This record gives sequence, C-alpha cells and structure tokens, in this order.
Amino acid sequence: MKFEIIKKSKKSKARVGKLYTKHGVINTPAFLPVGTQGTVKAMTPRDLNEISSEIILANTYHLFLRPGPDLIAQAGGLHKFINWDKPILTDSGGFQVYSLAENCKVFDHGVEFKSHIDGTKHFFTPEKVIDIQKAFGSDIMMPLDECVPYPCDRNTAEKAMEKTLAWAKISRNYPIDEEAQTLYGIIQGSTYKDLRVRATQEISSLNFKGYGIGGLSVGEPQETMFEILEAINPYLQDHAPRHLLGVGYAQDILGAVKYGMDTFDCVIPTRLARHGSFLTLEGKVSIRQARFEKDFTPIDPECDCYACKNFTKAYIRHIFWAREILGMQLLTIHNLRFFMRLMAKIRQEILDEV
Amino acid sequence: MKFEIIKKSKKSKARVGKLYTKHGVINTPAFLPVGTQGTVKAMTPRDLNEISSEIILANTYHLFLRPGPDLIAQAGGLHKFINWDKPILTDSGGFQVYSLAENCKVFDHGVEFKSHIDGTKHFFTPEKVIDIQKAFGSDIMMPLDECVPYPCDRNTAEKAMEKTLAWAKISRNYPIDEEAQTLYGIIQGSTYKDLRVRATQEISSLNFKGYGIGGLSVGEPQETMFEILEAINPYLQDHAPRHLLGVGYAQDILGAVKYGMDTFDCVIPTRLARHGSFLTLEGKVSIRQARFEKDFTPIDPECDCYACKNFTKAYIRHIFWAREILGMQLLTIHNLRFFMRLMAKIRQEILDEV
Repeated sequence: MKFEIIKKSKKSKARVGKLYTKHGVINTPAFLPVGTQGTVKAMTPRDLNEISSEIILANTYHLFLRPGPDLIAQAGGLHKFINWDKPILTDSGGFQVYSLAENCKVFDHGVEFKSHIDGTKHFFTPEKVIDIQKAFGSDIMMPLDECVPYPCDRNTAEKAMEKTLAWAKISRNYPIDEEAQTLYGIIQGSTYKDLRVRATQEISSLNFKGYGIGGLSVGEPQETMFEILEAINPYLQDHAPRHLLGVGYAQDILGAVKYGMDTFDCVIPTRLARHGSFLTLEGKVSIRQARFEKDFTPIDPECDCYACKNFTKAYIRHIFWAREILGMQLLTIHNLRFFMRLMAKIRQEILDEV
Repeated sequence: MKFEIIKKSKKSKARVGKLYTKHGVINTPAFLPVGTQGTVKAMTPRDLNEISSEIILANTYHLFLRPGPDLIAQAGGLHKFINWDKPILTDSGGFQVYSLAENCKVFDHGVEFKSHIDGTKHFFTPEKVIDIQKAFGSDIMMPLDECVPYPCDRNTAEKAMEKTLAWAKISRNYPIDEEAQTLYGIIQGSTYKDLRVRATQEISSLNFKGYGIGGLSVGEPQETMFEILEAINPYLQDHAPRHLLGVGYAQDILGAVKYGMDTFDCVIPTRLARHGSFLTLEGKVSIRQARFEKDFTPIDPECDCYACKNFTKAYIRHIFWAREILGMQLLTIHNLRFFMRLMAKIRQEILDEV
C-alpha cells in the first residue's frame, strides 16, 4: 500500500490523497459502504461500481462466525467470494465482540465470547484476528483492540487503551505479506484527551502504515469527538492515512475531514435506507411522509443516482408503504451515492482552494 | 393491438407469435413476471430489461387499494409511475377480491369487499374495473369475473360462469380507446368441461381481441387442467392470443403451450426466490442445503443471468443463511431468467420443426 498526499488544505488539517492498494486506488477523503456479512445490504456489486464506490468495509466478527475464514479462503479469498474486485478493509472484530457477542471476557492474551448466532464459544487473540484477515485477503486489516462504551470511567478507559496498545505491539510483529495486505494501528482512549494523545504517540512509534481511530461516535457529543481529533492530530504521522471507524453522519464527516481524517465507514446510509429514510446534508427525511404522496419529483433533482434519475418520491413512498424490497434497494443506492457525491465535493473543494 | 401468428406446430396446437402493443412487441409463447404492487418483487426495471422481459403483469386489486387509480393517473399512468416503458397486462382484480379481501359479497351488478389492508369497504362493477385499468393505461385489460375455488360443486361453478359471462357482455360494450388498450374476455367454468366449452363459445361470440383463461392451477391435478385446455381449444378463435392466468411451474407451461396457450404469469419464480429456492426443469431446489456449502460453481453453468455469471452457490447460500436482501435479488433474477430462457427455447423448438 502506498499513500500519496495530493494537496493539503491551508484552512484546516484536511488533505486530499490517493491510497494505492493491490485492488485499486482510493481517492481520499473517502467513504466506505459497509458490507457486514459480505454484501452491502440491498446492493449488488455493480450497483456499488455505479455509485463509484472505490472500497468497501466488511466485518471480521460476522464473517468469522459465518461462513468462516476457511470457507472464504477455499473460495479464493473474500474478493472472489463476494465478487468485488476493488479494495476491502476489514475491521478487527473487536467492536462487535463487545457490543454484539454474549458473555464477553477480556484476558491479557485475548477475548473470549459467545456467538450471537448460535452461542458457540470463541477466543480472539491478536494473532488469530490477523490470521482471519489473512484468510480473507483484506487489503487493509485492523488489529484486535478493546472497545469501551460511552460514557466510560477513566480507569476502565485507560486499562482498555493499555490492552489495545499491548495487542498492537503483538500485531505489529506478526508476519504478514506486506505486498498484498496492510495492517493499521488502532487508537483508543475514550473521551480522555491525554489517553488519546498517549495512544497516538505509542501507535505512531510502532510505525503502522495507517491509523484506525476507534471508539468515537458512540454516543459522545460531536464537539467532544472533534476535540479529540484535534488533540491527537499533531501526533499522527503525516504520511499515514487515518480511518475514522464507524463515522458517521454528513456533518460528522465534514468536520472530521478538517481534523485530518481520510476515510470513513458507517452503516447509517444503508440502515436508514432500509428503514425508509433518505439523507440530506441536514439529516434524514422519511419517504413515508404524507407530503410526498403526490410528489412526482425525484428525491434530489441534482443527484445522478439510478433512483433519482428514474423514480419519483410518490413512487418510492408507495413501495415503502407496500413493504416492497425495491424501496430499500432504491433508497440504499441514493443514500450511498449521496455520500460518494459528498466525498467528491469535499475533495474538489480542497483541490480548488487557492 | 395486433397478434401475428408466425408459425403453428404440426405436432400440437402450439403457436409462435408476435403481439404488437403500443408499448412494444411481445414474442409468444411468453412469460409475464408479476409486479403485484407496481414492482416485480426484488427487481429493478433494468433487471427486467436485462433478463429480456417484454411484458409484466400488475394486479388491479392491489394498485386500486394502494396507491389508487387517481394517483397513478396523476403520475401519468402506470408505465410512467413505475418506470416501465414496455407493455403491462393488468388482471381484473377478481381473483384477489375472492382470495384476499374480506367479507366478499357477489351481487348481480358487481362484488362488494373489504380491503385486506385497512378494512375499508369497496364495490367493483364491470365498468369500474375497466375505469381503473383505463386510469392505469394498461396495454392489456381483463374484465371483472367471478372466481371459484377448487374443488367446486357444479351448481356454484355454473352460476359463477354465468355471472362472468354477463359481466363480460357489459365489459365488451363499455367504451375504451382501442388504439391504446385491449380488453380480453375471461373464460371460467371450474373443472367442468361442458361449462368451459360453453363459456368459450360465448366469449368467442363477443369477439374479444384476446382470451384470459382463469380459474386453473388452483389445486386441480395438472392432467385436469390439460383436459380442459384441450376441450376448449376448438372454440377459441385462432387469431386471438390466449393468456393462461396464474400458471405456473415449468412443466405446466410446457404442457399448456401444446394446447394453444400463448402467454402466462405466475408468482412462483419470484416467490420461491425470496424463500431461497431456485428453479430447474424438474422443480425447485433450496439453496440453503448443506451440500451447497462449499459448492463454488454457479446455480446453472449454462445460464447467462447476472447471478450465474458472477456468484457461486456457496456465496448465495451464505447470504441466504445470513438473511441478506441480495440473496433474494440474485435468486429472483435467476428464476425469472430461467423462465425467459425456457420460453425462448419453446419458441425456437416450434420454429425449428420441419
């Protein structure tokens, strides 16, 4: 992997870059649609290509449990299995272990948990999580981390950060094929600025090729998130791309780019679409509203997506009330295209700065 | 509408034809994907074009209740509302009134029923059902009929047939724009050959431009259905296309074509797809089966659909177990393409006869 910075903003810490991977180039700042179980919900790979998605994220926890890394390796890797030939970032599985799995117990050498699907017991170590992502053939891998909820007392946050750092060291030394795959380092530390700064310094000293910033957008005020991003910025290595995990709404991303974040992923656009909402810069709007009953205009007349080019709000409202799958398909296409256009606009604005 | 017979089989009553409508040509024998509520479930219009669907069916009962004929007319008609510029056949609404609605009461001049959605009371007359389909702008319309379940005693079947004929006469005399829309006549009569023959004679004497054969494939043995199709064949006007309503499985269609049927519609391919089954000439197969777990071959290596060209059984099985929408999308595309290829093969075999 190579990261090239094309331009830095003079007004903020924002950068425009190109991330070169074995499976293609990603123009940053970029948004990654989330394909939790090996499919971006309600989207075909050609839909993803059409909206100009250059990379997707898949969840290690989910794919580990089902269909499992052995089957994916036998299929020829995750790209081939899911028919997606562009880059894939997989997360560490950590977030899902703590939020979704049952009976989760953290030990020095890893975390024990029970599958939310069938209750089977599993154990993730830093090494195992990398082995799983090696079987997937992910372009960008994340090391095992410990995630804490918000709010979180300082002592718990500090211990989790220390564990994350210890596991980061083990992960950094674990052999991988650096020609094909890249391991990022994850920064934790909850909402404590000094913990976050220390985590950033330590991760930077390990010279990972990129950063994952975890444990944000978990309930804290947006301002708090921005304060943390501002605090850690001086300690991030300039040449390394920064992925802000699980963020977010348009306004979160617009802000975070200014604090030097390069890539983002979030289930918001796809989840809201399935629940009948389309996204605007100001937030979500439910297509089910009565005011759209006879609205024979597209969701967004400026948008070039398949949904906006071919269907009216009245029609999409009708198929949502009728519980038709096509409603979810169309709003998912629109919401993801909305994010792709937003990112293209962000990049262009930085490039256009004089 | 114009129906041109290209070739008649010498081995059976099968014919290959071309049905010319305002919205395009349909090569017959043809299968119509069902778009009950104004969308073929889990398919976009471009998916339908890609599988070479030349016409779809929509349900008058459902679209009457929601979003209603006034809204559809305001949208510029059904084609424009649902973004489908090829032909549309709408049914009479009769079948759904008797099978889906509540408190259904048949009178001489029509049928009263309560909406299955919100319990509101409605009344369908022969005139009203045509008015609704005029608002839709359907290429092919069906007149109100009375449908009986199977089995059905002779007396009930005869009365329903008589009512269907009386309504057919009213419908035939009701003014429509024959340049834009075509009204078929419906033949009922349950499994009683003599009733079916009389119904066919009467409908033929009214000189409808086409026939709808209703009330078959409702539980009777396949042989019984074929016997009825054989019995009525001599009384069907040769130049008029025959639509066999709600039929069916591949084997039903293969047989019915030999008895002179030209077009077919059925929810089987789309419904089975959503439930995880793909179609073969021999019937349905569940993709969820353990034997497909590591089957890295397509559903059908001969098939040219998007699902078979790009995905393995192992992957589709995985996303079905994971309850992902893409599974329903892919199997729907495959099952409908399976029917399109079946119909093309049927046409070619008749054309190739020496």
